[in-house]
Amino acid sequence: MRVLESVLYAEDLVAARDFYTKVLELEEMIFDPERDLFLRCEGSVLIIFKASKTVIADSGVPAHGTVGAGHLAFAASESEIESWRERLATHNLPIIDEIYWKNGAHSIYFKDTAGNILEFATPSLWGMK
Amino acid sequence: MRVLESVLYAEDLVAARDFYTKVLELEEMIFDPERDLFLRCEGSVLIIFKASKTVIADSGVPAHGTVGAGHLAFAASESEIESWRERLATHNLPIIDEIYWKNGAHSIYFKDTAGNILEFATPSLWGMK
Repeated sequence: MRVLESVLYAEDLVAARDFYTKVLELEEMIFDPERDLFLRCEGSVLIIFKASKTVIADSGVPAHGTVGAGHLAFAASESEIESWRERLATHNLPIIDEIYWKNGAHSIYFKDTAGNILEFATPSLWGMK
Repeated sequence: MRVLESVLYAEDLVAARDFYTKVLELEEMIFDPERDLFLRCEGSVLIIFKASKTVIADSGVPAHGTVGAGHLAFAASESEIESWRERLATHNLPIIDEIYWKNGAHSIYFKDTAGNILEFATPSLWGMK
């Protein structure tokens, strides 16, 4: 079964948009600063919903919403992790943690503009390519 | 960029395990009833973290955690949506909403055991296969 939509929440969607489209270079699909930001990923969509809204309750679909720091990981090769390390540094975004896993996988952690904990991890972490 | 890990939170991980592995038939990778449940999806991992824990703070990786109903969608074909409709009914799990989108896509919504809003949607919703 494939995940088609992953979700994080942020209060300031303008800041989130800058971060996800300019720093992480994800493609913007839909953007409403008072509502949601849809970002195209490989085979799925990452949605950033405005945290303080009973989100999308007015669009006829069930309301949802969370408070607190969420988590999401992107797949990255070792060389891509090094590229991201440099790119995050360029944007003065600190790597808040780095783990070399027992199985040989490698992760770096950083925060988005809303405090969500993001990760770049080699897919070998989960025995994937 | 590919999403490698998507995350939802639940307080009762035993109930979540029953739901995600028996009803949704996802493959369990790791399960700790006081901590987390890792489920294998196509090309990614869905992690259900115990909501009341400052999750994984003791494992050396940055803490995160949210309160409230999260959201996640799985890709499903039209025929798979009909199969899931029957399967959910068998488990007395109501479909809380159903949408036929303007672009021809189709979604059904239901809740997991923690109240997270789940969705089966045809990938055509996002112009994907």
